[in-house]
Amino acid sequence: MTDEKEISDGVVDLLGVLAYGELSAFDRLAEDARSAPTMSGRAALASMAAAEMGHYDLLSRHLAAHGKVIEEAMDPFVRHVNAFHASTAPKSWLESLVKAYVGDGLAADLYREIAAWLDPETKDLVLSVLSDTGHSAFAEREVAAGIAADRKSRDKLALWGRRLLGEALTQAQYVVAERDGLAELIVAGSGDLSGIAALFRRLQQGHTKRMQVLGLG
Amino acid sequence: MTDEKEISDGVVDLLGVLAYGELSAFDRLAEDARSAPTMSGRAALASMAAAEMGHYDLLSRHLAAHGKVIEEAMDPFVRHVNAFHASTAPKSWLESLVKAYVGDGLAADLYREIAAWLDPETKDLVLSVLSDTGHSAFAEREVAAGIAADRKSRDKLALWGRRLLGEALTQAQYVVAERDGLAELIVAGSGDLSGIAALFRRLQQGHTKRMQVLGLG
Repeated sequence: MTDEKEISDGVVDLLGVLAYGELSAFDRLAEDARSAPTMSGRAALASMAAAEMGHYDLLSRHLAAHGKVIEEAMDPFVRHVNAFHASTAPKSWLESLVKAYVGDGLAADLYREIAAWLDPETKDLVLSVLSDTGHSAFAEREVAAGIAADRKSRDKLALWGRRLLGEALTQAQYVVAERDGLAELIVAGSGDLSGIAALFRRLQQGHTKRMQVLGLG
Repeated sequence: MTDEKEISDGVVDLLGVLAYGELSAFDRLAEDARSAPTMSGRAALASMAAAEMGHYDLLSRHLAAHGKVIEEAMDPFVRHVNAFHASTAPKSWLESLVKAYVGDGLAADLYREIAAWLDPETKDLVLSVLSDTGHSAFAEREVAAGIAADRKSRDKLALWGRRLLGEALTQAQYVVAERDGLAELIVAGSGDLSGIAALFRRLQQGHTKRMQVLGLG
C-alpha cells in the first residue's frame, strides 16, 4: 500500500540524523559563544546557533506532517553525533570558529548532495535549510586576523581542520553501517559503492577548499 | 540640528538593554536546554533561545541603521543583566522552565509598555520582537505535569517565581538610576514618578497572572 504521504525508513533516518546534527550543533555553538573574546564574536556564534534551530524546526515540521516524531527519528544517531562532538571539543576561540565554519560548510555540501536523491518535496526542504546565513564571512575574517597575529597557530589550526573532517567521516561511516535504510538510500542515490566513494571524495574536496579560504590549506 | 535618523540617548540605551537582555537570555536558555530531561524539552528550550537571537538581530539592524554600534549600546548594561542571571541560576529543570516562561512574559509586557512611548518606526520594531513564538504552551504543560507529580515542588517554585521578579526589579532600578537618558525616557513616557510606580505595578500584575497560569499563583 502506497501512501503519497509515506516516507521511507531511509528518508526518516536521513532527516533524523540531520535534525540531531542541528540540535547538537546548536548546543556546541552556544557553548562556544560563551568563550568568545568579544561581544560581537559572542553574538555571531549565538546567531549561528540560532540558525541551526531554524533548520531543526523545518525538519521537525516536515517529519510531523508525515506522521513521524522527530525525537524518535533522531534517537539512533544521538550516540555517534555526541561522540563526534566529544572527540572535537574546541580548546580555543579560533578552534571554535574553524569548527563552526568547517562544520557548517560540510553540512551544506552534504545537504546539497543528498537533495538530488530525494522526492521534490523533501528536496525543497533540504535545500531550504541551506540558505546562507552570512555568518561564514565573520569566521573568515576572525580566523584570518587570528593567524596573522600568531603565525604558529596556523599549523595547529590546519591540523585541527584535518582532524575535524576525519572524526566526522569516521562517525558517518559507523552511522551508515548501522542503518540499513540510510545505507540503501545512499547507495541508490549515489549509484553504487563507487558512487559512495566519489561522494566522500567530493566532500573532502569541499573541505580542502574551505581550509584554503581560511588560510589553512 | 535635528536629523530624522537621529535617535536619542535614551532610545539607544533602551535598545541596548533589550539587546543584551536577548543575548544573555539566549546564553542562559541554551545552557538550561542542556539539562533537559527529555529530547523534546531540550529542543523546546533551544528554540526559545534561538528566538532571542532573532530579536537581537532586529535590534542590531535598527541600531546600525541609525549609525549606532550594538556592542557599545549594550555595554552599560552587561554588569546588571549578568548580575540578574548570576543571582537566579536555575537549580532544576522546572526552575529553568519557570524562569524562561516568567522572563519571556515579563520582557513582553515591558516591550508593550515601552512601545507606546516611542516614535512609530522604533515602536514597530519593538512590537515585532513581541510576536508569540508558541513556546509558552510547552512550559505551561511541563510545569503543570511537574507539580502534579511532586506537590512539594509547587511551593518551592512559587517562591522561585517571586524571587525572579524581585531580582529583575532590583537590577532594573539600578539600571535606571545610572542612565539619565533612559530615566528621562521612562519619566517622559510614563508621565511622571507616579506613572513609573503604576508601570511597575502593572508589570507585577502581569507576573502574578502568569504565576497563576502555571498553577503557582
